[in-house]
Amino acid sequence: MSTEAMSARVGVLIAGLNGASANTMLAGSMGTNDVGARRLGSIIHGAGLGDHGLFADETSFVFGGWDVDGRTAADAATTHGILPVVDESTLERLGEIRPFPAYVGSLDTAEALQGGHTLSLGSAADAVAAVVENIQAFQSANAVDRCVVLYYASPLRRWQQATADLDETRLDELLHELRDVPSGLVYALAAIRANCAFGDLTPNITLEVPAILSAAERYGMPLAGRDLSTGETLLKLILGDMLRRRNLKLQGWYSANILGNADGRILSRPEHRSTKLEDKLSSLPKVLGYSDFDHVVDITYYPPRGDAKESWESVDFLGWLGLPMSMKINWQGRDSVLAAPLALDVVKHLDFALRHGERGLLGYVGAYFKRPLGCDQVPFHEALTNLRKYYLPYYLETPRDE
Amino acid sequence: MSTEAMSARVGVLIAGLNGASANTMLAGSMGTNDVGARRLGSIIHGAGLGDHGLFADETSFVFGGWDVDGRTAADAATTHGILPVVDESTLERLGEIRPFPAYVGSLDTAEALQGGHTLSLGSAADAVAAVVENIQAFQSANAVDRCVVLYYASPLRRWQQATADLDETRLDELLHELRDVPSGLVYALAAIRANCAFGDLTPNITLEVPAILSAAERYGMPLAGRDLSTGETLLKLILGDMLRRRNLKLQGWYSANILGNADGRILSRPEHRSTKLEDKLSSLPKVLGYSDFDHVVDITYYPPRGDAKESWESVDFLGWLGLPMSMKINWQGRDSVLAAPLALDVVKHLDFALRHGERGLLGYVGAYFKRPLGCDQVPFHEALTNLRKYYLPYYLETPRDE
Amino acid sequence: MSTEAMSARVGVLIAGLNGASANTMLAGSMGTNDVGARRLGSIIHGAGLGDHGLFADETSFVFGGWDVDGRTAADAATTHGILPVVDESTLERLGEIRPFPAYVGSLDTAEALQGGHTLSLGSAADAVAAVVENIQAFQSANAVDRCVVLYYASPLRRWQQATADLDETRLDELLHELRDVPSGLVYALAAIRANCAFGDLTPNITLEVPAILSAAERYGMPLAGRDLSTGETLLKLILGDMLRRRNLKLQGWYSANILGNADGRILSRPEHRSTKLEDKLSSLPKVLGYSDFDHVVDITYYPPRGDAKESWESVDFLGWLGLPMSMKINWQGRDSVLAAPLALDVVKHLDFALRHGERGLLGYVGAYFKRPLGCDQVPFHEALTNLRKYYLPYYLETPRDE
Amino acid sequence: MSTEAMSARVGVLIAGLNGASANTMLAGSMGTNDVGARRLGSIIHGAGLGDHGLFADETSFVFGGWDVDGRTAADAATTHGILPVVDESTLERLGEIRPFPAYVGSLDTAEALQGGHTLSLGSAADAVAAVVENIQAFQSANAVDRCVVLYYASPLRRWQQATADLDETRLDELLHELRDVPSGLVYALAAIRANCAFGDLTPNITLEVPAILSAAERYGMPLAGRDLSTGETLLKLILGDMLRRRNLKLQGWYSANILGNADGRILSRPEHRSTKLEDKLSSLPKVLGYSDFDHVVDITYYPPRGDAKESWESVDFLGWLGLPMSMKINWQGRDSVLAAPLALDVVKHLDFALRHGERGLLGYVGAYFKRPLGCDQVPFHEALTNLRKYYLPYYLETPRDE
Repeated sequence: MSTEAMSARVGVLIAGLNGASANTMLAGSMGTNDVGARRLGSIIHGAGLGDHGLFADETSFVFGGWDVDGRTAADAATTHGILPVVDESTLERLGEIRPFPAYVGSLDTAEALQGGHTLSLGSAADAVAAVVENIQAFQSANAVDRCVVLYYASPLRRWQQATADLDETRLDELLHELRDVPSGLVYALAAIRANCAFGDLTPNITLEVPAILSAAERYGMPLAGRDLSTGETLLKLILGDMLRRRNLKLQGWYSANILGNADGRILSRPEHRSTKLEDKLSSLPKVLGYSDFDHVVDITYYPPRGDAKESWESVDFLGWLGLPMSMKINWQGRDSVLAAPLALDVVKHLDFALRHGERGLLGYVGAYFKRPLGCDQVPFHEALTNLRKYYLPYYLETPRDE
Repeated sequence: MSTEAMSARVGVLIAGLNGASANTMLAGSMGTNDVGARRLGSIIHGAGLGDHGLFADETSFVFGGWDVDGRTAADAATTHGILPVVDESTLERLGEIRPFPAYVGSLDTAEALQGGHTLSLGSAADAVAAVVENIQAFQSANAVDRCVVLYYASPLRRWQQATADLDETRLDELLHELRDVPSGLVYALAAIRANCAFGDLTPNITLEVPAILSAAERYGMPLAGRDLSTGETLLKLILGDMLRRRNLKLQGWYSANILGNADGRILSRPEHRSTKLEDKLSSLPKVLGYSDFDHVVDITYYPPRGDAKESWESVDFLGWLGLPMSMKINWQGRDSVLAAPLALDVVKHLDFALRHGERGLLGYVGAYFKRPLGCDQVPFHEALTNLRKYYLPYYLETPRDE
Repeated sequence: MSTEAMSARVGVLIAGLNGASANTMLAGSMGTNDVGARRLGSIIHGAGLGDHGLFADETSFVFGGWDVDGRTAADAATTHGILPVVDESTLERLGEIRPFPAYVGSLDTAEALQGGHTLSLGSAADAVAAVVENIQAFQSANAVDRCVVLYYASPLRRWQQATADLDETRLDELLHELRDVPSGLVYALAAIRANCAFGDLTPNITLEVPAILSAAERYGMPLAGRDLSTGETLLKLILGDMLRRRNLKLQGWYSANILGNADGRILSRPEHRSTKLEDKLSSLPKVLGYSDFDHVVDITYYPPRGDAKESWESVDFLGWLGLPMSMKINWQGRDSVLAAPLALDVVKHLDFALRHGERGLLGYVGAYFKRPLGCDQVPFHEALTNLRKYYLPYYLETPRDE
Repeated sequence: MSTEAMSARVGVLIAGLNGASANTMLAGSMGTNDVGARRLGSIIHGAGLGDHGLFADETSFVFGGWDVDGRTAADAATTHGILPVVDESTLERLGEIRPFPAYVGSLDTAEALQGGHTLSLGSAADAVAAVVENIQAFQSANAVDRCVVLYYASPLRRWQQATADLDETRLDELLHELRDVPSGLVYALAAIRANCAFGDLTPNITLEVPAILSAAERYGMPLAGRDLSTGETLLKLILGDMLRRRNLKLQGWYSANILGNADGRILSRPEHRSTKLEDKLSSLPKVLGYSDFDHVVDITYYPPRGDAKESWESVDFLGWLGLPMSMKINWQGRDSVLAAPLALDVVKHLDFALRHGERGLLGYVGAYFKRPLGCDQVPFHEALTNLRKYYLPYYLETPRDE
């Protein structure tokens, strides 16, 4: 198995290829030979699952995807400037990666709507067909063995369409009727129909739509999502769990988030942040077991911060005899740097699932997501236990190195 | 069993009875009828162990103890002023509690050495005998069924005496030879010989001395310790665990602690804080699995803070590709208020152990301590699992309420 | 002069009498005999102007006013609970203070609109007449020598009416035509016509309306405003000034404000906070001399905070060679407690002006306001110098104590 | 005058040439053509004194000095790595700057004592003579018009010798008797005797010694000191001034400083930080006008921080009626980057003084120092006014650009 995982070439196709997070993932994983540094921030390695030959290595990944920005990945890396230094030979390889034109619907951001590098089509069904063709063209051009598609574009506006009963037949009708559907649906459906695993790293409804789940079931494709848990939400899970176990009553949690990248600009718009806020707000009550506390999350676009995500939290709680105490946390992270190893992990889990015939939502990867689908929201250490349990039979049978 | 626990009167004798923490525990548990408020901050309730009738209730506790300050507990409560309001009838009951004179050796603080309310004796052996007499007098005066002794005085200076091989025989010789031994040893030995359980809530070496462990074994007495984990150390365990599981490399952790109570004044003296610092520094490497990071803890006496413990932490770590990030935490707690429900819990565990014939160090209560004795240092949630596992057979057999 | 100031009874009539800030000012100044404690937070004393007998003493103030909450000031004090202890005799005196019914227009808050204790009238002109009558009734009932009216109700919505050319004639026409005008205008006009000085402690347009300025001129009444500078804005002035003098380039300033009182609830609504934000945002560019930086202010209602105003600021600046640095400030203040001594100071300045025939906007009290009217916005220490300069001739002629 | 200042070559000789701060000053001022970026952080420019041609330009500075580290300034720059990028041509020029061997006495740090690149001498008088020779050699090799010597080595231990009555005769005797005197004295005396201005940028007693002051008087040399005020102390002056003017009573100020450079390592040793702490502690009482508050300053060596100086401050104060409030400040600065433009300014002031015949301590440059000598400690804005006043006659006569 180890050999199979290692020797295969895995295609990784990303919707939003030239965004800060995806681009950082490409530039970093293609540009570093320092294995130890590349393992930092990876849950696979944090959970002790990295040394058993279970997973494909990121050096075997072949990257491609879609973007409204049609420049090469090298140009994008230069613009974002997130990694301190990208060497010449890496830039050269990044220069060879150019995105396909992106499907953009009216729920996308104003910036995306104005982007020049887009598909122009009669209906959304045409877009699905075009994306399937892109994938097949990529596969044959790059001789990849298996393929994972990630949705990593900006958070969409809410869709007015009710989706709770949207089955495949009705979705197909809609795709033919409409020009504008949520772009996540287009990529997910195309991925599944092109026999690719699909992961949603953003706060969108895609993986709640029945049509997508049943298509994945039918095609035997694995799904994972949603919204990578890079920092703040994880902190809430961890500290919320601590409060519960110490029987300290949470009275309120205020979070101010300041971001200077495109993500910040878009999330500062109420119409694009509603799903994100829902995801952020949903975790604490589940971990605490009650919801009678004030929970406020502000997200503000603040250009001086760049890609460095900063947050300030005030955690107010009651101790013995109801006496109030408080904890303030100032988180100074780097969004794309925290996200990259998690996104690479997700590709590896999806690729493993492809190889082992798993289909539908992978509940055991819940530790990666703000809003884990296919499983309950549980404290982080329990989510990791679930992950390790899933892989237990596989690494038990791994032959030891000698 | 429930009936037994509830109906019994449990004596709680505290060395350091008039200190801020012990006094707050008395005033709060005697003065509140609000059961919910009294449960806040208790791990017994956080772990879901509180509703099975396993434990004696704090309303059945009868308090007494020793202090260099000979005033009543009511006078001490007025001086400390930690609880917002203590009503008249509680003050009256506190007014009836007056400490026995304390044993003070040369390792105690300068303040204690100058305290007027002290035993004056020929040798430390006399002190042990006097403390045993105190306990017996307390027991017959108050008709208590069982008795727990807590050491809750200020952290001592280091003892020059090597203790690794100090067995009971040699300890008894020393007690006869010397006037000055660590006061923790005197109280521990007297407690055991008077058939009391003993808990050490402070950073002292008492429960590492072989003579104490073997005496507890011989007399069948349970022990628990050491150094209550009220806030900062717990945070380190929790966040250290998170870093490890996310494979984020800790580069350094700086902690500034400012305290305005007697504890702060005493811990600001290097000779009294060495064991405390050891306990504080020992937890992180165990949870992380490595120790190549800078770990600095400053403890500073800052009178404006009073009993409100404040700390500021800078947690510096490396993420993907070795890129540095940081988290700053400003903890605004209340020392005695955080400690009181934990101290009451420890009494309940020791009392349970007495009733069930447990002897020696209770490893399953490690979740309460900075430096858990009788068990390994593990992440907090694992320590809680160990606690629950121990009690599992007992609460499974609890008859359900009908 | 000193004698005159001291012996006189000064009426202080407040629109918003039962709000947290006004009520705290009443309860505190009526309830404390500790002169030193009452001087804390006063700029009059900070500027060394307090010991020359220039100003009336707050013990000579007689309080009254208007509110939609018709309860006594004692009931309001009990609800707000901002001061730790208010003794019985003070509560008794507060129990005798009951507000007149308030004028409420459609620009007031939803809460005010629903308040029961309001004037019901045909037109806004009737409201002005009613307020004038209230003032006269108060004056004759309390035998006050002079009277100051303060506007201290919640920030209003924006008025659609253009006000730049609104002279007295046109305003009077409007008052007869309309039922709903900004309540600040009603109180200001009534105050001036009843020969009272008028101060606006809130972020409203009242003192920018030409009709009000010319009425004050004609009646010879002094005005002061607007929006008390209690904490955060002052900090911005002070630190902005420091950056300018050190030639450190401000790149961005982010402020998150969390408040749990009625002010917080109302300012969290965009329609009520626009003038407040304008005032908060206007000061920095003036002090720095440039405006090419990102300045974002979030105001969030967060109930656990109560009247304790908390803010977190990230101040990002460039030093030598353009290298970025940052300063984070966590302000833990108490809104009403910071405001009360400033509001009392403003009354004293207005009363002094009344006695000395000053009319119109008092530019020399700019140090008190977020948006000083009648003067330029200057660094805080310059504003204090201006204040001292104005009073210089008066305190130079003060006879020295012997 | 402008022409004279501009055309002259000014020698800048630094004791501690290869330290982080001095080296950063060299690398930055030699490596940047961006005039605007070079002006950032300069008080000369903040005070509006930079555009009148009064001062020599740093491009006319010729650098040299002494260090126990005998490598070139290019090698030192590479080790320190404080400036993000130093280009090749600058590195080449830095490669030509190599320090003279340093005088090291027993009061210097252990590191300095072990440094290889030191003078080995019979007595301290020999050291003075050697330093004079170094200066003369430097002057003739570089054809400089005037010369400024800066002391910028690590803070020294306390000298046991009483210095209050140490006149030149007695100092000369001591220099002949002893091998070990504070190195600051050696450099100061040599500078003065070689007709150089002298500035002390560190917390040492040099400029309090009568012999140095009288020598400067006799030789007609200007002096400036001591201990550059780069960040935290300035903040204390600024905020202390605000508290005083608002009549808010300071109750306590706690500062934790964490530094990862050599300065941090040395200041973490009590014997090297006593003068520094005195300087840091002395400013607040002077600005506030009282000293009944708790003032604690911790300085801790914390390697992960590098040259980025971080501090956390808790400022606790009482407002109206004695109610407590607090402000927390987290300063994230860069020591050498904040210091460099100030050090360059000091050179310019000393050079101006040389040209204009000023001698002894320059009281008007107090704004630059934690412990200003030759003047009173006043609020920062007053210190700037003093600076501007001094230069007023000179820039008034500056011909305007046409």
